[in-house]
Amino acid sequence: MIGHPAFSVEPWSLRETELDTDVLAQTESLFALSNGHVGWRGNLDEGEPHGLAGSYLNGVYERHPLPYAEAGYGDPESGQTVINVTNGKVIRLLVDDEPFDVRYGDLHAHERVLDFRSGTLRRSAQWCSPTGRTVRVSSVRLVSLTQRAVAAVCFEVEPLDGPARVVVQSELVANEEPPPADGDPRAATVLRTPLRCEEHQARAGRALLVHATGASGLRVAAAMDHQLTCPEAAHEVTESREDLGRLTVATLLQPGQRLRLVKFVTYGWSANRSVPALRDQVEAALSEAVQTGWDGLLADQRGYLDDFWGRADVELDGDDEIQQAVRFGLFHILQAGARAEGRGIPAKGLTGPGYDGHAFWDTETFVLPVLTFALPAAAAHALRWRQAMLPLAIERARQLGLHGAAFPWRTIGGEECSGYWPAGTAAFHINADIADAAVRYIHVTGDADFEEKTGLDLLVHTARLWRSLGHYDSQDRFRIDGVTGPDEYTAVCDNNVYTNLMAQRNLAAAADAAERHPDRAGQLEVSADEAEGWRRAAAAMLIPYDDKLGVHPQAEGFTEHQAWDFAGTRVDQYPLLRHFPYFDLYRKQVVKQADLVLAMQLCPDAFSAEQKERNFAYYEAVTVRDSSLSAGTQAVIAAETGHLDLAYDYLAEAALMDLEDLEHNTRDGLHIAALAGSWIALVDGFGGLRNVDGSISFAPRLPPGLTRLAFTVSVRGRRLRAEVTQSSASYVLADDGSPIEIRHHDDPVTVTAGRPQPRPIPPSPVRPRPAQPPGREPRLGGRVASLRPDDSKQPDDNEQQGGRGR
Amino acid sequence: MIGHPAFSVEPWSLRETELDTDVLAQTESLFALSNGHVGWRGNLDEGEPHGLAGSYLNGVYERHPLPYAEAGYGDPESGQTVINVTNGKVIRLLVDDEPFDVRYGDLHAHERVLDFRSGTLRRSAQWCSPTGRTVRVSSVRLVSLTQRAVAAVCFEVEPLDGPARVVVQSELVANEEPPPADGDPRAATVLRTPLRCEEHQARAGRALLVHATGASGLRVAAAMDHQLTCPEAAHEVTESREDLGRLTVATLLQPGQRLRLVKFVTYGWSANRSVPALRDQVEAALSEAVQTGWDGLLADQRGYLDDFWGRADVELDGDDEIQQAVRFGLFHILQAGARAEGRGIPAKGLTGPGYDGHAFWDTETFVLPVLTFALPAAAAHALRWRQAMLPLAIERARQLGLHGAAFPWRTIGGEECSGYWPAGTAAFHINADIADAAVRYIHVTGDADFEEKTGLDLLVHTARLWRSLGHYDSQDRFRIDGVTGPDEYTAVCDNNVYTNLMAQRNLAAAADAAERHPDRAGQLEVSADEAEGWRRAAAAMLIPYDDKLGVHPQAEGFTEHQAWDFAGTRVDQYPLLRHFPYFDLYRKQVVKQADLVLAMQLCPDAFSAEQKERNFAYYEAVTVRDSSLSAGTQAVIAAETGHLDLAYDYLAEAALMDLEDLEHNTRDGLHIAALAGSWIALVDGFGGLRNVDGSISFAPRLPPGLTRLAFTVSVRGRRLRAEVTQSSASYVLADDGSPIEIRHHDDPVTVTAGRPQPRPIPPSPVRPRPAQPPGREPRLGGRVASLRPDDSKQPDDNEQQGGRGR
Repeated sequence: MIGHPAFSVEPWSLRETELDTDVLAQTESLFALSNGHVGWRGNLDEGEPHGLAGSYLNGVYERHPLPYAEAGYGDPESGQTVINVTNGKVIRLLVDDEPFDVRYGDLHAHERVLDFRSGTLRRSAQWCSPTGRTVRVSSVRLVSLTQRAVAAVCFEVEPLDGPARVVVQSELVANEEPPPADGDPRAATVLRTPLRCEEHQARAGRALLVHATGASGLRVAAAMDHQLTCPEAAHEVTESREDLGRLTVATLLQPGQRLRLVKFVTYGWSANRSVPALRDQVEAALSEAVQTGWDGLLADQRGYLDDFWGRADVELDGDDEIQQAVRFGLFHILQAGARAEGRGIPAKGLTGPGYDGHAFWDTETFVLPVLTFALPAAAAHALRWRQAMLPLAIERARQLGLHGAAFPWRTIGGEECSGYWPAGTAAFHINADIADAAVRYIHVTGDADFEEKTGLDLLVHTARLWRSLGHYDSQDRFRIDGVTGPDEYTAVCDNNVYTNLMAQRNLAAAADAAERHPDRAGQLEVSADEAEGWRRAAAAMLIPYDDKLGVHPQAEGFTEHQAWDFAGTRVDQYPLLRHFPYFDLYRKQVVKQADLVLAMQLCPDAFSAEQKERNFAYYEAVTVRDSSLSAGTQAVIAAETGHLDLAYDYLAEAALMDLEDLEHNTRDGLHIAALAGSWIALVDGFGGLRNVDGSISFAPRLPPGLTRLAFTVSVRGRRLRAEVTQSSASYVLADDGSPIEIRHHDDPVTVTAGRPQPRPIPPSPVRPRPAQPPGREPRLGGRVASLRPDDSKQPDDNEQQGGRGR
Repeated sequence: MIGHPAFSVEPWSLRETELDTDVLAQTESLFALSNGHVGWRGNLDEGEPHGLAGSYLNGVYERHPLPYAEAGYGDPESGQTVINVTNGKVIRLLVDDEPFDVRYGDLHAHERVLDFRSGTLRRSAQWCSPTGRTVRVSSVRLVSLTQRAVAAVCFEVEPLDGPARVVVQSELVANEEPPPADGDPRAATVLRTPLRCEEHQARAGRALLVHATGASGLRVAAAMDHQLTCPEAAHEVTESREDLGRLTVATLLQPGQRLRLVKFVTYGWSANRSVPALRDQVEAALSEAVQTGWDGLLADQRGYLDDFWGRADVELDGDDEIQQAVRFGLFHILQAGARAEGRGIPAKGLTGPGYDGHAFWDTETFVLPVLTFALPAAAAHALRWRQAMLPLAIERARQLGLHGAAFPWRTIGGEECSGYWPAGTAAFHINADIADAAVRYIHVTGDADFEEKTGLDLLVHTARLWRSLGHYDSQDRFRIDGVTGPDEYTAVCDNNVYTNLMAQRNLAAAADAAERHPDRAGQLEVSADEAEGWRRAAAAMLIPYDDKLGVHPQAEGFTEHQAWDFAGTRVDQYPLLRHFPYFDLYRKQVVKQADLVLAMQLCPDAFSAEQKERNFAYYEAVTVRDSSLSAGTQAVIAAETGHLDLAYDYLAEAALMDLEDLEHNTRDGLHIAALAGSWIALVDGFGGLRNVDGSISFAPRLPPGLTRLAFTVSVRGRRLRAEVTQSSASYVLADDGSPIEIRHHDDPVTVTAGRPQPRPIPPSPVRPRPAQPPGREPRLGGRVASLRPDDSKQPDDNEQQGGRGR
């Protein structure tokens, strides 16, 4: 995508300089705007052509039956799929009776810019209609980060070569026609006309639609209002129908005259509130938006983002593409989580319907580590959503014969929606991932109130799950049998190292937290005996080890399994799951995604340096990265074990996952966790950030091509800034306050405000680069090498510069 | 069921002395007639009431999509389900305008008798119509064992208390209304109106219907002809419509006058033959049936069965119920397999639509061991069906990335129809089960021609499968990972002992057979290297053993798994699979059905006597017998390890599985493999029959309650009769010919014709009875104990005796 000649490399924006309708769906995902509550794909203002029309409200889904050829007890009976809600983006244009449609007439110029600092999508086009009239059309669109229910568009049209009769139709459209299903299991279940109209109203530029879903029983309201600036008299009509609200403006413009229409759109939804209540809610939000005004919304958006970048920016010298990509990633992570308040963060954010709009462990394991350091409040909100879902998770555990809570592998509303249990329900590690995210948030922020009110609740219920899921064997080892770890090419196995280590931490953390908050623990009926049982299970946890090979088997028996025939596997047979049966994948040594390697990242103390080195080399040779979640983790451990070049290659793969459409499904939405992986690869990888038992440590080391890496992370309410070069690193607090103790390559450093603490970087060990399966080397390895030699100067920080075609 | 007061204990028949419509569906299964090609459930002649109307043709099915919530590569896309074909049983009766329907009027007497020696179902009723006219109605029905396409009914009606206007309607009915689906996964997929009429004809007492299925593209023809004997003038009309052929006879009968209608019905089906060809085929069969006549069909049937019982009877003194049950079982096994020629033997035979009419490993592992000794030609036919399906199995193996052939876990037409791969495709042992059945057949019959033409083909392709499915580990052990053994409560595990032992035998047997038939092996491209590779893999086969416990783990890791909480499991939570998720069952020590115990039966040489004793005790404590396949096997090993009482209890459970409706699904058809299990429990259990490397051995030993067990088995074309008492056994050949060498309790015996060889029986070891999980003791244990004291005399061998109510 970014390799497409229409895209240019810029530090603070994603710019497309011409329109290629062949990649329209992919660009709609890249140019999506969202605040975590409302999401608008980057569809063209005029609605068509589109790749995939999409407007989303976080938490709004339809329920549908999950079919089974042979159902088993406990298989979820219904699934949830995100629906395309009322589209408030549409502004159609007629020029001398010809609809503005880029497929007809001549498009002389076209540009779209997603601006990471203003938080807007700007679009401009110069179009000559089939009847020969040329107009300039432009729009600026935002989904407000400060007013959660609000999105807005500023639309302008101006004839260039003669007078034009112009009609502008600004719309709310429900039940847009969905695209045909394509059979890719990662795409969404297609639902036609998911919305049933309950109310529609229109008067004087304002319109409102209230709809309800069928099976899930959710109510959705959307409203719009407008401010029109028109040099000539204009005929205005506002009307509404069941699936349509529309303002029509008709006028005659002379060259140089410009019609400007500001459109304010607000959304609301509820499972409980009545039609009048919801109607009033969106109309109130509309009043607030109109009161703030377009310029006010723009200014607020800029202010919010200035603050964010001041807390969370990552700067890079030596690779402009990665610089752009990591900011693109951070911007979309912000968009996915900023205002999700009370809802989950789906795997695709609100950028597309992929994976049915479900949230997975991606949130806690990949996205929250970034948000915890970049926007801690959003991390806390995401965890509070899990807490709110606890009653459903407790019920699910009960259904499975377990104590505590069993969180769903994939869900929107909190119920398990996985239709294949070996790669769903059996992936119990999600419970430890959630607990781990809570512990990380508490350690990094020091938010004791959160620990007492939310963290403890999550920790206690997940610890109870582990205690009931595992058992002591004849040697008094605590075993966890028959579960699936992160690697989905090995399932339902005994003593997965990742799962057992994470469960061990979960159990111990629950006991610790219960000790710190005895009152709340008492309310949760945690006895001293129960907490002691958690500690004992944690201490007795079985961690298998293969003495002969000197590596950890991913799970018991793994290293005895047959080698996958990589030499006999063709490049077009990846991803393997689409060309080989699970039975074949499961019984052989082939790894879809970092599993044992992820354990080494998240539980660094459980492995010696030598074990890490041997394990990494062993698993590199069998890991095919058929998951977008893997590259960031592999980058981190590659960096830690001294393979900086390899780490760089993996960083590129994670960072450019969507910009290069590496998985060929960016059309269905962005891979938010992979975008997080680029931050993780940089900060945890080259920055060496670790958080073990509440202490923050860094072990920075840059690969040859990078000359500087600087990043800011939030720690205990303060901004800690690290600046790393090839030879040294320095640490400083950007805010006043008490110093923070960290470690730099194992040496203690006291970081204070105002006075950067420089430290030298020890040289990296020189080791042979581990091999990957043939054809599964990092996908952008060549790119990075070719970039490196002389391309390390910082580009002009000017958004208006011409794009460099690639 | 048999405990029902309407049933009586008789040695050669199943008799029901009154009609209980609450158990109608169950009795329809018990009273089913079949020859393995055509099957008629025991529906009442008049069609209604019925529990489940059923007429089946072996191999006739409809195809339907198999849905998946999350599909995987290689998941079968379509299923097959047996359909209820044209019903030729129906003979309706009108008496003075009142339809004969047992739900109305008064049923003064009703009796049904399934006669194991005549091969008929006799029914007689005395009924007083709502208008007060009493008639005697009787029918005799058969499905011919000698004319495979033919079934026939002799129907009589006679007024008893005054003249009656009588109308008899003899019909062919297609697309009967199916029963509502009940959600039991073991029941059939319900298809409505599966047949589309292609031709219908009627003239002068004859009618014909030709139908086709929709998706599977099969054509089904049924025809009927009649012979009417009527003392008075009768009005006759024959007509046909799309789903109906009908002869109507109307007459007036005086008391003592009897109308007699003999109905001949023939069936044919084909995937290839045209409508005219199939029409001519059934009409030709009809001519042959009419030519043979009713008395001729009856005589042929009796002759066929006299021969069968002379070759295969099992006699028992001391338990009349089991005597009846084992003959009932043998009769139904005969009916399931006798004329299946070219088709499989479904789990339910042709007695009902349960399990969608699929054939499983039941055939080779439970049914063929009986048929091999009782009706060897039928065993050969069943194996030739597998051979005919080899191209599909080879294609399936290729799809799974394997060499050789992968036979389907469940199928009608040969394609894999399993919609849940861990308990389907992963159960690769079915391939070794088929190979084992072929080897057993060859050893017992000495049929070298079969070995060369069929056996070798099956052995070579299954050996190739095993060689490609397994691999050598770092210690040069041959491992088979990630497969499912017989126990469906443990799935996708490494080195299942049963699977590995059976694969070991399969590999060695293929190499041996290839050596004996070098020309045919050459045609199959078996090189010396390949055969040597099979021998090497067999020799290196990994058989896990738990040294600490001194038992074989069912599969690697099994004995380390958590104990199932039997004490906390309620009786109403069985079968467990309907109340607990697979994930929970798989990771714990709970066994659905004999797995390691079956390995000890089929591979007796692989275990020492002490291992058998310890293994049996260990697995008894964790086996819940949620499968009807298990009891017979447990009986055999209980007997071998000296637990004769326990073996007796398991025998009763297997033998009475359907007669007592122990699984509560006899309505959907009989458990043919469980019925085989009663023979296996008696002959392999108390008779101690084993067949290892081609040598036949016996180790008979009777439980206290039985005074005599005698059975005849076919060995190398001769009938070998064994007669066992508490203290001794004797062996004799019932045919002239060369002697046969056997072993009796390890001592060699030369068995000859005419002179029984008596041998003493060594005393049984006295050992404590192994415990079963609470509530999962043999289900009829109490029954056997209560029967035993004084009830050991042989009943009068007279079918006409009054039934003893129980």
